[in-house]
Amino acid sequence: MPAFNIHRLSHAALNVSNIERAREFYVDILGFVEVEKNGDELYLKGVEEGQHHSLILKKGEPTGLVYAGFRVSSPEDLDRVRSYYESRGCRVTKYKEKAVDDALLVIDMFGVPMLFYYDMEYTGDLGLRFNVYKGAPPVRIHHVNLGLKTHDLEEGLRYYTEDLGFILTEYFLGPDGSKQIAWLTGRYIHSSHEVAIAKAGDAAFHHIAYYVFEFRDMVRIADILASLGMWDSIERGPGRHGATRGFHLYLRDPDGNRIELYQGDYVILDPDKWKPIEWRYEQARYRSDFWGRPTPERWREVKQVIPPSL
Amino acid sequence: MPAFNIHRLSHAALNVSNIERAREFYVDILGFVEVEKNGDELYLKGVEEGQHHSLILKKGEPTGLVYAGFRVSSPEDLDRVRSYYESRGCRVTKYKEKAVDDALLVIDMFGVPMLFYYDMEYTGDLGLRFNVYKGAPPVRIHHVNLGLKTHDLEEGLRYYTEDLGFILTEYFLGPDGSKQIAWLTGRYIHSSHEVAIAKAGDAAFHHIAYYVFEFRDMVRIADILASLGMWDSIERGPGRHGATRGFHLYLRDPDGNRIELYQGDYVILDPDKWKPIEWRYEQARYRSDFWGRPTPERWREVKQVIPPSL
Amino acid sequence: MPAFNIHRLSHAALNVSNIERAREFYVDILGFVEVEKNGDELYLKGVEEGQHHSLILKKGEPTGLVYAGFRVSSPEDLDRVRSYYESRGCRVTKYKEKAVDDALLVIDMFGVPMLFYYDMEYTGDLGLRFNVYKGAPPVRIHHVNLGLKTHDLEEGLRYYTEDLGFILTEYFLGPDGSKQIAWLTGRYIHSSHEVAIAKAGDAAFHHIAYYVFEFRDMVRIADILASLGMWDSIERGPGRHGATRGFHLYLRDPDGNRIELYQGDYVILDPDKWKPIEWRYEQARYRSDFWGRPTPERWREVKQVIPPSL
Amino acid sequence: MPAFNIHRLSHAALNVSNIERAREFYVDILGFVEVEKNGDELYLKGVEEGQHHSLILKKGEPTGLVYAGFRVSSPEDLDRVRSYYESRGCRVTKYKEKAVDDALLVIDMFGVPMLFYYDMEYTGDLGLRFNVYKGAPPVRIHHVNLGLKTHDLEEGLRYYTEDLGFILTEYFLGPDGSKQIAWLTGRYIHSSHEVAIAKAGDAAFHHIAYYVFEFRDMVRIADILASLGMWDSIERGPGRHGATRGFHLYLRDPDGNRIELYQGDYVILDPDKWKPIEWRYEQARYRSDFWGRPTPERWREVKQVIPPSL
Repeated sequence: MPAFNIHRLSHAALNVSNIERAREFYVDILGFVEVEKNGDELYLKGVEEGQHHSLILKKGEPTGLVYAGFRVSSPEDLDRVRSYYESRGCRVTKYKEKAVDDALLVIDMFGVPMLFYYDMEYTGDLGLRFNVYKGAPPVRIHHVNLGLKTHDLEEGLRYYTEDLGFILTEYFLGPDGSKQIAWLTGRYIHSSHEVAIAKAGDAAFHHIAYYVFEFRDMVRIADILASLGMWDSIERGPGRHGATRGFHLYLRDPDGNRIELYQGDYVILDPDKWKPIEWRYEQARYRSDFWGRPTPERWREVKQVIPPSL
Repeated sequence: MPAFNIHRLSHAALNVSNIERAREFYVDILGFVEVEKNGDELYLKGVEEGQHHSLILKKGEPTGLVYAGFRVSSPEDLDRVRSYYESRGCRVTKYKEKAVDDALLVIDMFGVPMLFYYDMEYTGDLGLRFNVYKGAPPVRIHHVNLGLKTHDLEEGLRYYTEDLGFILTEYFLGPDGSKQIAWLTGRYIHSSHEVAIAKAGDAAFHHIAYYVFEFRDMVRIADILASLGMWDSIERGPGRHGATRGFHLYLRDPDGNRIELYQGDYVILDPDKWKPIEWRYEQARYRSDFWGRPTPERWREVKQVIPPSL
Repeated sequence: MPAFNIHRLSHAALNVSNIERAREFYVDILGFVEVEKNGDELYLKGVEEGQHHSLILKKGEPTGLVYAGFRVSSPEDLDRVRSYYESRGCRVTKYKEKAVDDALLVIDMFGVPMLFYYDMEYTGDLGLRFNVYKGAPPVRIHHVNLGLKTHDLEEGLRYYTEDLGFILTEYFLGPDGSKQIAWLTGRYIHSSHEVAIAKAGDAAFHHIAYYVFEFRDMVRIADILASLGMWDSIERGPGRHGATRGFHLYLRDPDGNRIELYQGDYVILDPDKWKPIEWRYEQARYRSDFWGRPTPERWREVKQVIPPSL
Repeated sequence: MPAFNIHRLSHAALNVSNIERAREFYVDILGFVEVEKNGDELYLKGVEEGQHHSLILKKGEPTGLVYAGFRVSSPEDLDRVRSYYESRGCRVTKYKEKAVDDALLVIDMFGVPMLFYYDMEYTGDLGLRFNVYKGAPPVRIHHVNLGLKTHDLEEGLRYYTEDLGFILTEYFLGPDGSKQIAWLTGRYIHSSHEVAIAKAGDAAFHHIAYYVFEFRDMVRIADILASLGMWDSIERGPGRHGATRGFHLYLRDPDGNRIELYQGDYVILDPDKWKPIEWRYEQARYRSDFWGRPTPERWREVKQVIPPSL
């Protein structure tokens, strides 16, 4: 039994140094739906998302991940969130986020800032309004990829599977045979993963990913960015992952925050029957890029996490 | 609280008059994975499905739907299945299906034959073996579309939502303002729908649908069928639905059983926030074909249900 | 030896009743490049076209085709155009078209208004500027489909092949075994066809077609038009032709002028080896729609030709 | 006036060390149409090609390009081929190729073996037989990329444009401002290029390219090759070129011969108006890979040319 019930990964907040420049990237180029601008914060989402927002861009530096936001399954789960993290020695703070009631902000035992809430205002999705689609467009938030401050990823895995209730779907082994990265899916959304976690010296942010309708949409974004001379924004891909089978295009926003456009992974139909896919170190050539292409050095860099001051 | 917990729609059994001819259609042309042939039964599945099968073709006439198969969430749910249906005056029978333990066959209050089970042998999916993909290929079972014997679809809706735990996602109204067809998604798979139900004079089978990776895969199947002179197998599409937003290609197998290739519907991210989409009769032009094209008369025909003799 | 050398079909002029409304359709929705507006005329082209324009929308009624424009191979060919048509009893008139030098307007022996010219101003194509692509987008003019005033299409074929130098690629036979429609490709562009001609009671305009990059682009346009409630603009398709193998989406502009988005036809690699493809009347089910779907009645309608007063 | 008239690039002959292994790569995996096997030679073509073959695989070593084959415009052009090359001091030899009459083999002034012929047996294309398509499939030969033995590419360009009649469409400048690589299109096929030529120390073979229907077909081939563990066959791509705008996937056959799957380039509509596109050395980041990704070192390697002994 998990310590509390997470419904799903619902959003992320990122620091950017210049809101207007970020808006051009996320809204004008990638096609995020702009929900509203509120002072130094911009609220965005994908075309299929009904909740108020799934991405908050906050003016602030250093840039990186402010927190990952998770919806819990009931208001009562928020109490359990508080008890659980306090019992682990983590400080739990009330946090006010636009359109959200009663959120709790935690920096977990692995240094990752996480926001838990039950209720966010529902403003509706774009539905069948294809005439207002732009860019890719992003469809919905898919996953977040985080570095956990730990020397032993098994600790992080126990936390995610036993305490948070996630299901391990795939993992990479390092040269020493220990787990390096793991993919986990939640108990409501059963795609290949909602969260990927890696062993890291410090808590770190690798990327957030948004689902797109088709691989062709990634090609369109790469074409548009290249037309604009923004080659540094195209970090890796378009390509196919071995792990998770998904198509990928990794982008960097003007502040270096990494966002992945993603598509084509599987559904975990019967979680009790799923045997996590193990990728050995000898399979490094194709486990990240299924077609065997080298991974750019820059793609290995991470951004920091910058939780709000509590 | 539902009367018992359905995990998901997992398979269907269809009668066909000639197994070998059906095999050519489903395996050689559409690209279903052939699991095994067992006398007069052929076991098939999509490339992403790990369970033993998701489609059984049984030699038998008349042709049509033998039953729709649902996995329940626990062995105990099978006892609750029995109590529930017996309390409704339906006969519940043990049924032996290959690779499945302890299945119960029911003909429900609306005349639909349904099989419930908890455990099916798991034989693994095709994973990343793109080299053996054929045809579309079908990826996984997506939904079943059934006619319920009732004069009032609200009765069927109460059964599906209150007793079986499904969530109403969309519905069509008739000229008299009453519901004609409804789409419902389950509590584990949260796509646009796992089941669609229509008001009918008698229990009836409209179609089963399989997910495909891309719209382009439907075009490939239409091209292949046309190359083979099998125009009568291409009943409707490729096209876009208004309801559910999904792309469709409706096919008829050599016995007239209807199978839909389907792609591109949405995910219900927050079921408690979802407001079912109502399509009024005045919207008939585009609610079934979003592009406003007429629906072929033949597509309105249904096949019968032919439950096994109990 | 042809009577004169046609380089290629280069443009068409259409009458529309309302320039601004037409602009919304062609530019905002379909994604034509707007070159310039000149009083009651709007000059458009596809993203790959370097010449000044390939489509002129002229305010005028009745709506329909004003003329089809052909570039000839040399200035001297214009003299040969004059001699040829005058020898056939057709009046030949100098015509002033923006950005074009020395154009000759002819109403040919079959009642079709044709403009011949050698030199049009070259303003450059969009090249790799994917960031300004909109709509489909249209890539380049592909073909024009015309009705010839004749009781015997063989006469029209002799004119097109012997005098104008086109190559017959495919044709439809009627129930009486005579040719009904023929597809012809020019001596420079060797796609499946630059011109299609049909036997008609009077000269008539069926459609002009623009190449698009992919079938998926037709789907996008159908989605956008449907989102805007413009179902009457989606006349037929998206689909696959038997004849020419091309994918099609037939649209109607706000005045009922028919424009086809088209993609995927073949290249005539060795014209001397090409054996025209004959489609018998018994093949009517799939020669126009390869997937065997019925052709909407409305698609059989034609618009008139409205040549400028000479 | 060119020295003789080339109709088009029609085929290539490659040496392979093992015919059966090559057949598996080209036919079973990529989907080339197998026309016939004749002892130690295998004749292949794309699905849209009517001529007997467009690719000959010959058992022989070293592996590489045996010759590039060009169809001339008339039988008389063969006499002009002979006079031209003999006047340049090149030996011209009659060559017997299956299904071809009266071919002349030349090793040109730049060391490249070229075969000229007028008449090849015509066996028909696959037309609308989508049911027999496999792999990508390759549609038709698109271009050949050759190294010319010269210290000054301008010499090669004069040869190709003035003597052979090709049209320069694009070129790369080196750091010294001289041309390094040039793309040229023929006078019949007016795509972005039929031939690309590079300055080289010795005549060399970089790749032959086949057109495919869609970018998605390149993804399918990459997926299939990766599924088979053939990562070394996937050399570069799928991606988008800056030069020519084409999508690319560079493959290596089991002997290291390079074949490109290619799609999406432009048509030269008005060759007299075309201004060749110049790519400066400073544009190296994106002129070969439009998305700015690095080019693998291995892709710079060339194979040798191995003309038949004359």
